[in-house]
Amino acid sequence: MDPSHLPNKVLTSAPGKLILHGEHAVVHGTTALATSLNLRSYLELTANSSKVSLNFPDINLQGTWNISDLEETFRHLIHFGDNTMAFLDEEGVNQLKDFAGLSGDINTRNLAIIAFLYLYLCIFKSSASHSLQGMNALATSNLPTGAGLGSSAAFSASLVSGLLIFTGTLKVPHGRHDWTGEELELINRWAFEGEKVIHGNPSGVDNAVSVFGGALRYKSKAIEHLHKMPSLRVLLINTKVPRSTKILVAGVKDKLEKYPGVIKPVFDSIEDISQRCETVLSSLWGIEHDSFVEGATHNQFELYCTMEELIDMNQSFLKILGVSHPSIENVCTLTTEYGIHAKLTGAGGGGCVFALLRPDYPQEKLEMVTTKLKEAGYEAWVTSIGGVGATYHESVDDVYEKGFILPKPLET
Amino acid sequence: MDPSHLPNKVLTSAPGKLILHGEHAVVHGTTALATSLNLRSYLELTANSSKVSLNFPDINLQGTWNISDLEETFRHLIHFGDNTMAFLDEEGVNQLKDFAGLSGDINTRNLAIIAFLYLYLCIFKSSASHSLQGMNALATSNLPTGAGLGSSAAFSASLVSGLLIFTGTLKVPHGRHDWTGEELELINRWAFEGEKVIHGNPSGVDNAVSVFGGALRYKSKAIEHLHKMPSLRVLLINTKVPRSTKILVAGVKDKLEKYPGVIKPVFDSIEDISQRCETVLSSLWGIEHDSFVEGATHNQFELYCTMEELIDMNQSFLKILGVSHPSIENVCTLTTEYGIHAKLTGAGGGGCVFALLRPDYPQEKLEMVTTKLKEAGYEAWVTSIGGVGATYHESVDDVYEKGFILPKPLET
Repeated sequence: MDPSHLPNKVLTSAPGKLILHGEHAVVHGTTALATSLNLRSYLELTANSSKVSLNFPDINLQGTWNISDLEETFRHLIHFGDNTMAFLDEEGVNQLKDFAGLSGDINTRNLAIIAFLYLYLCIFKSSASHSLQGMNALATSNLPTGAGLGSSAAFSASLVSGLLIFTGTLKVPHGRHDWTGEELELINRWAFEGEKVIHGNPSGVDNAVSVFGGALRYKSKAIEHLHKMPSLRVLLINTKVPRSTKILVAGVKDKLEKYPGVIKPVFDSIEDISQRCETVLSSLWGIEHDSFVEGATHNQFELYCTMEELIDMNQSFLKILGVSHPSIENVCTLTTEYGIHAKLTGAGGGGCVFALLRPDYPQEKLEMVTTKLKEAGYEAWVTSIGGVGATYHESVDDVYEKGFILPKPLET
Repeated sequence: MDPSHLPNKVLTSAPGKLILHGEHAVVHGTTALATSLNLRSYLELTANSSKVSLNFPDINLQGTWNISDLEETFRHLIHFGDNTMAFLDEEGVNQLKDFAGLSGDINTRNLAIIAFLYLYLCIFKSSASHSLQGMNALATSNLPTGAGLGSSAAFSASLVSGLLIFTGTLKVPHGRHDWTGEELELINRWAFEGEKVIHGNPSGVDNAVSVFGGALRYKSKAIEHLHKMPSLRVLLINTKVPRSTKILVAGVKDKLEKYPGVIKPVFDSIEDISQRCETVLSSLWGIEHDSFVEGATHNQFELYCTMEELIDMNQSFLKILGVSHPSIENVCTLTTEYGIHAKLTGAGGGGCVFALLRPDYPQEKLEMVTTKLKEAGYEAWVTSIGGVGATYHESVDDVYEKGFILPKPLET
């Protein structure tokens, strides 16, 4: 594409991730179901003459770098892989840290800067022009960070989507045109690179869910997309209790070693819950799309009952694994009082809890339970799961039209 | 024994029952562990010339019958089994109901009367003299009725023990002499007859625990005594929420049919919990008796930790089976705040909960948690499990000396 035709401004977004079932058990070979969470990361790219900048007010991050300096420093450090994707090796990434003046501290801000510069450099170097170009990036997100909701993957996915359009590698999708499967695959490959820079050895689940949307099953390191994932309303609650995923995972391993005869069957039960949930999701998708799904029960009420029972049972199994927390139990007790069923999602030990909302759940009650939760010191969002992945927005209006919630820094 | 040497007054007691692990799962072939609960049923028999009476103030029961009428009515209805134990067949039991003037109502009082008259008639008819004799029976109990704590078996066991002494069938145990295994077997056979009159088709677990004390394992209708059961302190809580065991058992069956892949492994886990608990109990017994138990861990702290973890896990499994209740969850949350671990016992859906108390659990905290539980509307008792079964008491003082709590009607 002729550089003169490249857009001056690109707005993209990508969703977070929510684990429906299978967290922790997945480490021991069980199926996990992950789905997109419509709390999204947004990225706005604007052309600039000679500088590249990142402004991420949510995490109080502001950085500006000279393109000529970047070009100079990394010219000889950029490698090209089989698929013509440019990359920096370990030495290059270390150089990037030095360049950005970051100490060895691993924190959200530093990781965002490294991922940003990495993707900026490598995507521009992989583009038709192979040359860097000035731009300002404004990032903002509705996702809490470090809460197991895939905020880093959503940042990477929105950034990659924007950069691939900005560099002319991907066309701007017009009107109702969505990205093709091939285009999404490319976005996902780059988003995975971003995740690797941030997490070292990511599973690829977070970026896949953020890019493709919908839901996927993950088992023994293999990812398969669910083709019949309905969009479902959920109430997401952040207990705000900090926890260490590493310690929680180790705790489950210890419990398995101490009580193999108790814990191994728990993994079997969770496997069945994941599989059963997938079947129910297909059936609900069938109802939503008025489409026949083989073996499906076309009774929405019963299907929601089953979904709720699976959620309740899995929450108890997770408690048995030792990854619940008084705050999680408290949230579940509170939501139960309002007739909605909740379980922890992700690592547990605090972190986030989700509750399924039936389509006919009364707004009044929803406001009551949300208020109760907030009064108890938790954050709560009414949002949805299973929706679209990485998305290009023609304008801010398009964000509103899609029913998404635009975070403050982008509001006009 | 010469009737002139028969005692004029006999005081006996027998404990209730507590299921440690395996309730509900036992219906589906899993091992259950039942243990004696030192909330006891007491029975005082006093000689009387021509009448037999039962006074059971706890359940507002008072009945008096003429011996000659009983003799007249049942002389030809009494049969003798292989073991020379007299019995009434179905017709005889119906006659007994008519005789006592009881309508078809099945309630605690009517069942107690029928069991009392049945055991009175049959035990006297099986005795050396084969003749009925006047006596007043005063029954009283620390066990709540209908709470799944084996109150009817404790009533039968204390009554049978008393009657067998009163009729001279069993010698009065003197001093530190306990009943022999054979004597206990006889008491148990009769207590089982009482249970059959009350329950129709009892498992035999409740009477066995009440008569023999200690603990037993029950699987596929077979009862085996645990020979290494320590005495453990527990806090017993009655939620006072009424429930139907039949409906709860049916609910578990429904859940198994709807989610076999989830629920069958739960039974496997519970089986392992019961087995593991038995091993831990042997080890604790070993410490208590300063006796080597093969393969046992002689670390009391660790053993209690394991017991607590087994309790917590099983409570969650029972919640998965659908037999917990908000009141039970509430009790567990409350006790957890005081560092003690609780699970439902028996049918669930309300009913009773027990919490294990470590030997060094501070009295002050115990009083605090008990107060909290009572404030929340529950009944709570500090008692023990695994203690002695059916017992003869030389006097009321002997009851106190054994550290038992004498219910009001027997206090002197």
